[in-house]
Amino acid sequence: MTTVVVTGGGVIGLSIAWRAAQRGFSVTLVDPSPGQGASYAAAGMLTPVSEAAYTEKELFALGAASLGRYPAFAAELAAASGEPASFRTAGTLQIGYDADDLAVIDELHALQDSLGVPGQRLTARECRRLEPMLDPSVRGGLLAEADGSVDPRQLTRALLAATERAGVRLIRQPVEGILAGPGDGGPGDGGPGDGLGTGPGAGAGDGTDQPGSERAGGVRLADGSTITADWTVLAAGWNSAAIEGLPADCVPPVRPVKGQVARLRAPDGFLRRTVRGIVRGSSVYLVPRDNGELVLGATQEDLGPDTRVTAGGLWELLRDARALVPGITELEFTEAVARLRPGTPDNAPVLGPCRMAGLVLATGHFRNGVLLTPVTADIIIGYLETGQMPEIAAHFTIDRFLGGRPE
Amino acid sequence: MTTVVVTGGGVIGLSIAWRAAQRGFSVTLVDPSPGQGASYAAAGMLTPVSEAAYTEKELFALGAASLGRYPAFAAELAAASGEPASFRTAGTLQIGYDADDLAVIDELHALQDSLGVPGQRLTARECRRLEPMLDPSVRGGLLAEADGSVDPRQLTRALLAATERAGVRLIRQPVEGILAGPGDGGPGDGGPGDGLGTGPGAGAGDGTDQPGSERAGGVRLADGSTITADWTVLAAGWNSAAIEGLPADCVPPVRPVKGQVARLRAPDGFLRRTVRGIVRGSSVYLVPRDNGELVLGATQEDLGPDTRVTAGGLWELLRDARALVPGITELEFTEAVARLRPGTPDNAPVLGPCRMAGLVLATGHFRNGVLLTPVTADIIIGYLETGQMPEIAAHFTIDRFLGGRPE
Repeated sequence: MTTVVVTGGGVIGLSIAWRAAQRGFSVTLVDPSPGQGASYAAAGMLTPVSEAAYTEKELFALGAASLGRYPAFAAELAAASGEPASFRTAGTLQIGYDADDLAVIDELHALQDSLGVPGQRLTARECRRLEPMLDPSVRGGLLAEADGSVDPRQLTRALLAATERAGVRLIRQPVEGILAGPGDGGPGDGGPGDGLGTGPGAGAGDGTDQPGSERAGGVRLADGSTITADWTVLAAGWNSAAIEGLPADCVPPVRPVKGQVARLRAPDGFLRRTVRGIVRGSSVYLVPRDNGELVLGATQEDLGPDTRVTAGGLWELLRDARALVPGITELEFTEAVARLRPGTPDNAPVLGPCRMAGLVLATGHFRNGVLLTPVTADIIIGYLETGQMPEIAAHFTIDRFLGGRPE
Repeated sequence: MTTVVVTGGGVIGLSIAWRAAQRGFSVTLVDPSPGQGASYAAAGMLTPVSEAAYTEKELFALGAASLGRYPAFAAELAAASGEPASFRTAGTLQIGYDADDLAVIDELHALQDSLGVPGQRLTARECRRLEPMLDPSVRGGLLAEADGSVDPRQLTRALLAATERAGVRLIRQPVEGILAGPGDGGPGDGGPGDGLGTGPGAGAGDGTDQPGSERAGGVRLADGSTITADWTVLAAGWNSAAIEGLPADCVPPVRPVKGQVARLRAPDGFLRRTVRGIVRGSSVYLVPRDNGELVLGATQEDLGPDTRVTAGGLWELLRDARALVPGITELEFTEAVARLRPGTPDNAPVLGPCRMAGLVLATGHFRNGVLLTPVTADIIIGYLETGQMPEIAAHFTIDRFLGGRPE
């Protein structure tokens, strides 16, 4: 049986582990505290449409494909886990608070049009008819009816249950390094489509960086023990770059981007759909859930690995959310958390093989990890099974960051 | 040995229990979760001077007397409990944010002068010399050098340890009612100074309300068990009015006044003393502690028994504190809590005997419970020992709320 070790138990790593076990791989997942990283703070917006104007064409296509897979993914996960699905498709309403903010919304609309993405421009009155809690002074908005949302904590719970039922072995420890061993022509070693050669192996853990000389053989844990595997999947979010033993051209260019998020408790129907706003140039979103939770997010701070909630971060979230929806002042404040997203230079994920055979990257999802969960799992499993990256993922390999790439 | 049962384990009930046990009473304290009520949220400002202008003369005198007793009280408590004392006397700086706010500060100063209370009017530059983190645009302030502060959670821990060492029996249950029994000429029954007659007894728990007919005989707990005692002290904060079996003219006129408080973590020396401000007519305070905690408070909301932290309450605290001290935006947010203060019609406590012999009231401390802890304990113990209320406490009996009082 082909063995896979997945490093990282966020929504990405868990979904890959679940899918791999379904397909008959023998899977081990390693994470000191699964679901407690970026997935724990995430609001769970599934908004490729309302984000379309901010992103490159390829990332929009990837997000739209993933959203398209969500209904089936959520239903299958609910059945496999016994946990309720929290997926909903109520759409997103993007609001311009003042005239300048509305001008930005109009630009987004024009860009969406040019991409062929459906977005419906609404007057202030139409916005308030859809969401009566909006402040009377908002200027107008843009409706993306196809957008959805999911509760990432519920998603994590379901994925944990599904992986367990599927026979994934969970090891609650940090991964310290990748085991390097000689290339042996096994899975992922020069298979079709990965464009990587094989060659004489380098010694395990010797840290040398000879092109084509190594293959990944599993991981070394913090306690010194090792897990050997045919495939090693790196899905450790912003921590992925810190794993020892990666050849330089396999280190994903991820950095921690701090996000602070607040949670409130709202009465039923307080908001019907995700509301995103631009408030005097500042972005904020409010994501309602069926369980009464209302998530306010999110800051974006390049401060290194700092997960403190700050007075200023919280104040800005409350200020901007209150400007859009004044009624939040009466709502119960239940939680504020900060976590670190894996940011990349082009804000897009790093997926698939790299020069070290047997190593597969699945990180760098930045603000889109929850959205990209179904498609990422399908892409990675497809690669493990066929050695091929599908067309939709071709843009997202680490090759795009390597100056001397062989194309 | 004379027995005392104290209902309520906040700073007031705990200090009375400790002092009573020290003086040789056999003491039982009943509270389902000691120290988790108003004491848990309190910022611990000891600011009779900077509050002088807001209060009646008698309450100022009581607060000043209690502050005067704090150094000895804190030292004795530290020795008795083995817990460090958190009492400090760094003063209070009151700040006017804009010109209108400064006009209010000037009125306070004039009122303090008329009361003979020392307060030092400072220019904006002088304020910033004392507290460099103040916003450059603040207009001026008033320094009350004698004001102090204490950490109420540390005070609670110390009082719990001291009561245990002094032999107080702690019962973690809610009190359901006062036991009423026949007056028997025992302690507190028509003793000198309480002005209350004795008479034929009413049956226990019959709920009748015959003047002079009853005496308190202890308390009935939620599980139906009873604790009999010579003295019953009611120190249950805003819950005191809900205890069953109180004759109508012994029910303290307390109502819950919600206070929301936020806690941040500040570097050493961020603020040197308590800073209180009036920011566009809204009041806020920032209380620094030696352990790095910075407490922001507090809302005052008449909403009944609601202890939800709200988005609006938290937002206002952060907004006003940030206006005074912009640097708080960089500080870690660690906690927000809401608790209920025992408010009274004149914002002053209800202390001492009432018409039901053997029953002693110690509640209604509103915003001043921590400040008034030492003097309240002294007053109540003095009364238990002598049957007399000292002159300083004469103004604070429940008689002031009884229309038909006999004077």
